[in-house]
Amino acid sequence: MRKQLIDMLESRTEEMIQIRRYLHENPELSFKEDKTAQYILDFYKGKDVEIQSNVGNGHGIIVTIKGGKPGKTIGLRADFDALPILEETGLPFKSKNEGVMHACGHDGHTAYLLVLADCLIQLRDEIPGTIKIIHQHAEEVPPGGAKSIVESGALDDLDNIFGIHLLPFNSAGVVGYHSGFSMAGRSYLKLGIQGVGGHGSSPHMANDAIVAGSYFVTAVQTIISRRLNPFDMGVITIGSFDGKGTFNVIKDRVELEGDIRYMNMDSKAIIEKEVRRIVNGIEAEFDVKCDLTYTSDYPPLYNNPEVTAGVKASLEGANDPDIKEVIEYPMMSPSDDFAYYLEKIPGCYFFVGSKPKGVEKPYFNHHPKYDIDEDALIVAAKSVGYVVCGTMV
Amino acid sequence: MRKQLIDMLESRTEEMIQIRRYLHENPELSFKEDKTAQYILDFYKGKDVEIQSNVGNGHGIIVTIKGGKPGKTIGLRADFDALPILEETGLPFKSKNEGVMHACGHDGHTAYLLVLADCLIQLRDEIPGTIKIIHQHAEEVPPGGAKSIVESGALDDLDNIFGIHLLPFNSAGVVGYHSGFSMAGRSYLKLGIQGVGGHGSSPHMANDAIVAGSYFVTAVQTIISRRLNPFDMGVITIGSFDGKGTFNVIKDRVELEGDIRYMNMDSKAIIEKEVRRIVNGIEAEFDVKCDLTYTSDYPPLYNNPEVTAGVKASLEGANDPDIKEVIEYPMMSPSDDFAYYLEKIPGCYFFVGSKPKGVEKPYFNHHPKYDIDEDALIVAAKSVGYVVCGTMV
Amino acid sequence: MRKQLIDMLESRTEEMIQIRRYLHENPELSFKEDKTAQYILDFYKGKDVEIQSNVGNGHGIIVTIKGGKPGKTIGLRADFDALPILEETGLPFKSKNEGVMHACGHDGHTAYLLVLADCLIQLRDEIPGTIKIIHQHAEEVPPGGAKSIVESGALDDLDNIFGIHLLPFNSAGVVGYHSGFSMAGRSYLKLGIQGVGGHGSSPHMANDAIVAGSYFVTAVQTIISRRLNPFDMGVITIGSFDGKGTFNVIKDRVELEGDIRYMNMDSKAIIEKEVRRIVNGIEAEFDVKCDLTYTSDYPPLYNNPEVTAGVKASLEGANDPDIKEVIEYPMMSPSDDFAYYLEKIPGCYFFVGSKPKGVEKPYFNHHPKYDIDEDALIVAAKSVGYVVCGTMV
Amino acid sequence: MRKQLIDMLESRTEEMIQIRRYLHENPELSFKEDKTAQYILDFYKGKDVEIQSNVGNGHGIIVTIKGGKPGKTIGLRADFDALPILEETGLPFKSKNEGVMHACGHDGHTAYLLVLADCLIQLRDEIPGTIKIIHQHAEEVPPGGAKSIVESGALDDLDNIFGIHLLPFNSAGVVGYHSGFSMAGRSYLKLGIQGVGGHGSSPHMANDAIVAGSYFVTAVQTIISRRLNPFDMGVITIGSFDGKGTFNVIKDRVELEGDIRYMNMDSKAIIEKEVRRIVNGIEAEFDVKCDLTYTSDYPPLYNNPEVTAGVKASLEGANDPDIKEVIEYPMMSPSDDFAYYLEKIPGCYFFVGSKPKGVEKPYFNHHPKYDIDEDALIVAAKSVGYVVCGTMV
Repeated sequence: MRKQLIDMLESRTEEMIQIRRYLHENPELSFKEDKTAQYILDFYKGKDVEIQSNVGNGHGIIVTIKGGKPGKTIGLRADFDALPILEETGLPFKSKNEGVMHACGHDGHTAYLLVLADCLIQLRDEIPGTIKIIHQHAEEVPPGGAKSIVESGALDDLDNIFGIHLLPFNSAGVVGYHSGFSMAGRSYLKLGIQGVGGHGSSPHMANDAIVAGSYFVTAVQTIISRRLNPFDMGVITIGSFDGKGTFNVIKDRVELEGDIRYMNMDSKAIIEKEVRRIVNGIEAEFDVKCDLTYTSDYPPLYNNPEVTAGVKASLEGANDPDIKEVIEYPMMSPSDDFAYYLEKIPGCYFFVGSKPKGVEKPYFNHHPKYDIDEDALIVAAKSVGYVVCGTMV
Repeated sequence: MRKQLIDMLESRTEEMIQIRRYLHENPELSFKEDKTAQYILDFYKGKDVEIQSNVGNGHGIIVTIKGGKPGKTIGLRADFDALPILEETGLPFKSKNEGVMHACGHDGHTAYLLVLADCLIQLRDEIPGTIKIIHQHAEEVPPGGAKSIVESGALDDLDNIFGIHLLPFNSAGVVGYHSGFSMAGRSYLKLGIQGVGGHGSSPHMANDAIVAGSYFVTAVQTIISRRLNPFDMGVITIGSFDGKGTFNVIKDRVELEGDIRYMNMDSKAIIEKEVRRIVNGIEAEFDVKCDLTYTSDYPPLYNNPEVTAGVKASLEGANDPDIKEVIEYPMMSPSDDFAYYLEKIPGCYFFVGSKPKGVEKPYFNHHPKYDIDEDALIVAAKSVGYVVCGTMV
Repeated sequence: MRKQLIDMLESRTEEMIQIRRYLHENPELSFKEDKTAQYILDFYKGKDVEIQSNVGNGHGIIVTIKGGKPGKTIGLRADFDALPILEETGLPFKSKNEGVMHACGHDGHTAYLLVLADCLIQLRDEIPGTIKIIHQHAEEVPPGGAKSIVESGALDDLDNIFGIHLLPFNSAGVVGYHSGFSMAGRSYLKLGIQGVGGHGSSPHMANDAIVAGSYFVTAVQTIISRRLNPFDMGVITIGSFDGKGTFNVIKDRVELEGDIRYMNMDSKAIIEKEVRRIVNGIEAEFDVKCDLTYTSDYPPLYNNPEVTAGVKASLEGANDPDIKEVIEYPMMSPSDDFAYYLEKIPGCYFFVGSKPKGVEKPYFNHHPKYDIDEDALIVAAKSVGYVVCGTMV
Repeated sequence: MRKQLIDMLESRTEEMIQIRRYLHENPELSFKEDKTAQYILDFYKGKDVEIQSNVGNGHGIIVTIKGGKPGKTIGLRADFDALPILEETGLPFKSKNEGVMHACGHDGHTAYLLVLADCLIQLRDEIPGTIKIIHQHAEEVPPGGAKSIVESGALDDLDNIFGIHLLPFNSAGVVGYHSGFSMAGRSYLKLGIQGVGGHGSSPHMANDAIVAGSYFVTAVQTIISRRLNPFDMGVITIGSFDGKGTFNVIKDRVELEGDIRYMNMDSKAIIEKEVRRIVNGIEAEFDVKCDLTYTSDYPPLYNNPEVTAGVKASLEGANDPDIKEVIEYPMMSPSDDFAYYLEKIPGCYFFVGSKPKGVEKPYFNHHPKYDIDEDALIVAAKSVGYVVCGTMV
């Protein structure tokens, strides 16, 4: 089965690219992926599989491929939502949905998995067990889609789960893994600061929310620099400072949103405690009223060491000219809601190099000029294919 | 003529209120006052006056009333633009143009002046000289309408000019003046801070413009607190901090806008020099690229002492039960582009109390709940009427 | 008597200079003026006057000169303490007491008044009334000497009181006055911020008081820039940030001291309220313990308008070639505990120019290079002499 | 030889304690350890060893014990300087040198090593090789003593070097090691900020160095929070903010000193570049003149993995009831100039628990209440003894 699968994938390389380009051109925001979900459903139309749609809290789709032989039940997941970014790539197939962009490679994830799934469907008689293809919505916006899919019970029968993320650090052909805690946990903050509006020339008769918000941003830096153990990873990014107003009207309210990362539970607790402390301090200091929403969403992502060892073995044993190198990655600061699957199901989330050819310093995920080397698609498909065969057979 | 005029005004008190309510319900932003200008032109339709429209850089209207007798040429001005504020008054005639509001009393200014103009037209044969009614657009947004109207030459023949502003500090019935420098000069800043965007979890691969912008806001406080002569008035309000983004994307650019006030030229120069210095410092400190627009628009407003003495005399000599008190106001921090008229034409800009009845702490101009006591309209009309008579006869 | 007095003063110009130089060379800190007080007492030794020493809370000295004729009782005051400043003038008679300096002109005040007093003693038979010479200790450090001298009752019989301050803004020969509120009121703050010490490499196991103190300093700027009426004078100077420690030991405690100025009671109240608010905010924000001492010492100094008119008349009527110009000064931001005398006794505190010759930009009082033009001494002596004659005769 | 050595050490446990108490009572600052060095020299007086004193840039002492048999040459080092901390332990043998304290355990290091050296001297005939006892001065103040001792050439013949540090994290009986990079590298900054002094009430005529220094402290937080890779360890502690002055005199100059830690060369470079950038920014922003000294002193400490494996084996093979547990320590943020020895000589610096009995939360090194469990002295002596035997025999 392995050779058949790999040959079939190879012959459909161009199709993956076309699907990826179609998706890239038609990105949709998290929880609003109507057309994307329909596109996926259309793809499976007429194929002899069980399809669940609207799984979880959005457009989640689960396609169940029952193999012809008894065996394990495994899951393969790709996410399909895009980001609110104005694309600057200048690609011929750049986003037609202005202000929305596949800047995190989910177009590639979905493209390879659709083709891989179709090949597996064709090989179903050979498959010893069941494969659930998980097309996941809303990875980018907490609470994300994964948690709700897990909670739906639809994956209760899985023995293992796998997924990959395209990464711009390495060229197509390089595949990487990390065992144990691999990606950061994440919290989210939303802070409204309510002052008192007024005429710009009379600050003493108002209470300037922009000033209070700015002092908050400067104070919050000390949590990472002075409160956290310097050996522990921690990030607080205030990604949004919504204080747009009129130049000569004192702003009565600003709203800040932020992203918090950490690699252990101590750091998580320290950061939350200190953010709350600073919010209280800003209230006292500037006589403003703060309303803080602080939620912790994606936990640190934990790759099961045994399953990860299996992934490593499958990849290293592939002897496939497309998989040029298998490397160990360090821990990484991004978060992924794949962590929710791994809380319940032993599995491994690994990484496929997609650095554009000829580029020394590629743009990072979430950059308006982010792009992938499309050669990474066949690498992704084959890699997951080898892992499926290694796990099931 | 004085008694006739005052009696006519008194009989049309209700009309002023109706006009003010219509204007209040239909506010338009500076330079976009199409319907308001049309409303004013319609008001004068069929009356035997000379009308100039589109005067200056917008919808400025000048109505020339030539009196039946020889004499001085004087100007009376009311502004008619509104503000980008979401009204929260709950008035039955509140703004139908959501997000736009007459929160600075210009509806009242225009209402009283239309009725006063009409009365003067009817009394034209009695008038010794010429009266130019100036309906001015765009007072709120620099460069404003006044400067361009002055530059158009349309007022070159004026001997004096007058105007009033409704103020919530005093009740209807109180009229105030200040001789010499009376209202603040004003500069405007727009600052773009360009960093480098990136994923929220990897600050070291990006350069956070929100952080740089926040440190700018805290640093700029020291100009007023440490660089300015403590005996001199100065204000720097950053009224807009446009840093809205996505919580987990490091913001690559923020834009700030600010309003600067001062009562003399030394302070003006110090503030500009220090703002430029801090912008340079922020660039050096945070490795960002700043683009600063810094313009000085409305000069300090100077009421000619002799003319102001005449205004005071006219008001104190009125013996009108509606004008209960004539007071001296202190210098005030708001600016008004009436200052441009006064740079060229000896005149006086004075103040009419409009504090809503039964309210101890009225909302200030530019507040979403700002309102006026409509009894102030007849006070305004009469006050200007007395001044016209005192000046011309 | 006036001509006699002025002639006597003129003949002793050189003596004033010598006394001033001796005092300059031997400065003593507030409340520690042992040798200075002894020097003054020695000066009066053997003269037929009543001497009170140790008046008030320190080395205050009152010398009572009873005139030969009946009349008013007036007081003349000079202060004699110095400042903790390391002198950098390079004068041949520079401070021999390293780190202590007469950088506020009190050496000159005392020098002229000693000679003036001696002349008045010699002319005592001519004097219609009583003159109390007040040599005051501790003007620089609150609560100062003046308050306690007033409270001692020693001045209860005064009809008027006068004093002068040397000022570097104008040349010797210029004398100035201001009627009404003339010099700022003053408050004092001392803030201890207690964190937790520790090893410099482990900030998370300590709590850095230097960081908390620095954020306090930046936050406090907003009181002047955003809370105070922009038309009102206000200053908060943190003159001491005592955080000296070891580079690699996290500082457990810092102590800040500050000086606050204002020209009215509203500003006084706002600043105190907001300082307390920010201290509370810093405690909440950084988990430190703050102990704040906030005292209000010297009130705004009020020159009685009637008495000031008399001073102006005496000076303008002098026709003395040494008094070249009599000008009106603006309000000034320094404080002086002469204000306490003026709370109880109608009087006038006025100003004598002492700008060093040939200097365009003189050093301000309290600067390590501050110096005076010694020609100002005879101007001071004569000016007060004219005022004494004008008041008493 | 091993058993003999261990028995001898055991019998002299009380002596180690007495020596430690003597040293604790008589602490001396780095580079000023006159009496301490003399005490050590006196200890070896009359013993048949070669002694070098004043080695390196201070009071360094090297005692060479030539063994009776051929073999390796190894070094054992203990440091003996104290810290400028006012002791608050209340111990009966607390510092008699007020303001100076052995708050880093160097008293214990020296105490155990003196006794161990004496035992080794007595056993010299058994020793296969040469042992150099290194009593090192000035560990606490860069450039430290170690670098200069290495540069003196006195250790050029060493095959291996060992040392220990007492740590309060674990009880006496616990010994720990870390292989590879183990302790942080360190840089030092000294920043003078020169403004312009003046009277506290006239900020516009001066330029406040305390304000500029405070903004520097807040800005510098962003280096750790935003510029450094969140997975890399980094610390910037401003341990001294010397801005003591007079409350009402605007401070013309402040001096800051700081301590910087990192675990790799990238972080070292980033922090230095960004500190220099912020200093330039503060100069531009506040019109002050900055003079920055930035030196990098102790490199990251690298324990040779092979030698460390030998240490581990020696300790685990000891089967000594005093050595209750041998653990792996994590990387640690403190720096130690032992790193200079390890740059040239393969060796291992390891850790001996010294948490006071009955204490849950011990005070950290450099705290005024820091103390050790004196039972740790025999553990230290034995541990190093086992390592010596394991290495040489």
